[in-house]
Amino acid sequence: MPTISQRGQLMPPSPIRKLVPYAEAAKKRGVTVYHLNIGQPDIETPEPVLDAVRQSHFKILEYSHSAGNESYRQKLTGYYKKFDIDVTSQQIIVTTGGSEAILFGFMACLDPGDEVIIPEPFYANYNGFAVAANVHVKPITSSIETGFALPPIEEFEKLITPKTKGILICNPNNPTGYLYSREEMEVLKHICLKYNLFLFSDEAYREFCYSGKHFSAMNLEGMDNNVILMDTISKRYSACGARIGALVTKNQTVLDAVMKFAQARLSPPSFAQIAAEAAVDLPADYFDGIKAEYEARRDILVKMLNEIPGVYCPNPGGAFYAMAKLPIDDADKFCQWLLESFEYKQQTVMLSPGTGFYATAGLGKDEVRLAYVLNTGDIQHAMECLAAALRVYPGKK
Amino acid sequence: MPTISQRGQLMPPSPIRKLVPYAEAAKKRGVTVYHLNIGQPDIETPEPVLDAVRQSHFKILEYSHSAGNESYRQKLTGYYKKFDIDVTSQQIIVTTGGSEAILFGFMACLDPGDEVIIPEPFYANYNGFAVAANVHVKPITSSIETGFALPPIEEFEKLITPKTKGILICNPNNPTGYLYSREEMEVLKHICLKYNLFLFSDEAYREFCYSGKHFSAMNLEGMDNNVILMDTISKRYSACGARIGALVTKNQTVLDAVMKFAQARLSPPSFAQIAAEAAVDLPADYFDGIKAEYEARRDILVKMLNEIPGVYCPNPGGAFYAMAKLPIDDADKFCQWLLESFEYKQQTVMLSPGTGFYATAGLGKDEVRLAYVLNTGDIQHAMECLAAALRVYPGKK
Repeated sequence: MPTISQRGQLMPPSPIRKLVPYAEAAKKRGVTVYHLNIGQPDIETPEPVLDAVRQSHFKILEYSHSAGNESYRQKLTGYYKKFDIDVTSQQIIVTTGGSEAILFGFMACLDPGDEVIIPEPFYANYNGFAVAANVHVKPITSSIETGFALPPIEEFEKLITPKTKGILICNPNNPTGYLYSREEMEVLKHICLKYNLFLFSDEAYREFCYSGKHFSAMNLEGMDNNVILMDTISKRYSACGARIGALVTKNQTVLDAVMKFAQARLSPPSFAQIAAEAAVDLPADYFDGIKAEYEARRDILVKMLNEIPGVYCPNPGGAFYAMAKLPIDDADKFCQWLLESFEYKQQTVMLSPGTGFYATAGLGKDEVRLAYVLNTGDIQHAMECLAAALRVYPGKK
Repeated sequence: MPTISQRGQLMPPSPIRKLVPYAEAAKKRGVTVYHLNIGQPDIETPEPVLDAVRQSHFKILEYSHSAGNESYRQKLTGYYKKFDIDVTSQQIIVTTGGSEAILFGFMACLDPGDEVIIPEPFYANYNGFAVAANVHVKPITSSIETGFALPPIEEFEKLITPKTKGILICNPNNPTGYLYSREEMEVLKHICLKYNLFLFSDEAYREFCYSGKHFSAMNLEGMDNNVILMDTISKRYSACGARIGALVTKNQTVLDAVMKFAQARLSPPSFAQIAAEAAVDLPADYFDGIKAEYEARRDILVKMLNEIPGVYCPNPGGAFYAMAKLPIDDADKFCQWLLESFEYKQQTVMLSPGTGFYATAGLGKDEVRLAYVLNTGDIQHAMECLAAALRVYPGKK
């Protein structure tokens, strides 16, 4: 029997999905499970977005241009303009989800053995794309005590080796919800220019900023050749299943290289590009209601978390995630216990163990990520469950 | 300015798409261009497939399961059953096009520096996925004189090194249209078992067999742990833009590894999975009409090609491609000349230079690939153009 690859063995399983069988078993027992574990919003996809596909009239579901439909890319230039990001349609390559934008960015810029620095905790799937590209992730730890602010410049410099080719930043951040300030982005610029590094900027949650304004890496002056924007419509329009994202850069050499990867896989999905194009035309006030909803959820989540004895949750400035520190021995054990051995009024809550978001072994053991993708009523119920759980959890510290 | 990766530099540009600007210029001059260069069929996507999406009723465009919707995978087991392929839904991972099935197969089974043997001429994008995975393609040349039959076993054995991890076969073949016989597939089995290799089997054109019956690699006995089927609905239902494929194998270790790559990119496109699921329910006679149409096209194409002095085209047994040998100095120059400097009754033809399908330098210089994705009338016009062109082409041999 032939053996699989090293990288197939090294590839990390999804830390978020491994608890799914326990959740399914809990539901079979009749327990209501509040899913605060995944970034699948409950917000309805805007009707005009779905209707654009449902009312489409073509006869052949053809390949699109490998870079995505020109009409969509043209519209995207207008979308970015609203954030003072000046790009042409030629500087946008439409990808199959933000996932493919990350993969293409790594593939085009990094070789096997190269290193990319990522503040941890970070989106767990960066690990997967790094393994796929045979790239090493060098984590730089940010701490819950500072609300997960950017670590000091000296800490970055300690990590830089001749193999370092880039820094990846997710802003606003998944899993911490931290919104990096303009000053922090300028620090990253300073490091990237000094050490000649790419700055990969994942801005999937651009629209969801509550305390402060989003500052895009694309707006860093003098960084045109360094910044690779990795974008997606998944969260923006609650259209995760569309699988439409974009890689955006002004670096022509990178664009040329990414285009070759895009051609190899032929094209991004055609139905979903119709939806994505319609989404750009949503009225300007579309996000106001959504943002108000998420902000209300955040406020109640963070307030109720901090009221539980021994729990600490910094107030996240953006996205729809919060990291909380719990008085527990082991987040993985706790999250499994919640589903397997606990219920409160026939309800329980599903959380993501903090460990899955750290590359440094041992970190995140007393932290969990909560995605506030449920309505405020359900969030209240979920927090009551969590409070009750922490009163009786055997591994309480 | 940071430099892009070696693999970004090595990544081959699409050999098929590089002539596009010349075709566009020809059209601007008022010349009709017959596109025999790409595998985008003109056959309409079946209405029930498009209607399934247009009549869908969900409110949130959610992520699907990373392996694809269970309902779709269940149906696919029935689809494969019709070809005596016995698989469970757990042995099917739905991918974003056949492209992703190829990439996942390479990633899960092969490490940087590993070698995969592929009979050439071959589908050019295998090169792209190999570069993405840092894998080396070792071509084994099949020849137009034998109609591109499988090279003898000794030729394979000459290429095998300790780094060889697999053989990739496309059956029926793109670009040659060659349909491998059961006996040839048994030869591949013999080699794979003897040398402990994976057999990657791209069967994108399974339905399109005219002379003889398709024999799937999945039906090779004793090869459950070796065979990785890479599949797609793109050609089957004329649904290239859906971007739905599948990786199918009975090797549980490979499935587990591929599943981790699938989880990292979250899910295949949701709209298109609805279309794909509906496609499985098409009436059994759906392919009869399509096959008859392609066969008629093949017959006229091959006949007219062989009537042109100095041209030789073996009769392809499947898919919708033919490779022809032309009396020319250089296929790349000729294909560009057709678009740039030639017209016949205000028409010309776009072909794919043979060189793009060979990994061995210098091969394919007097060959072109023709995709018979136009109706018989247009194919006739196109062949008249080609005949006229060969009468006046300055680089004629």
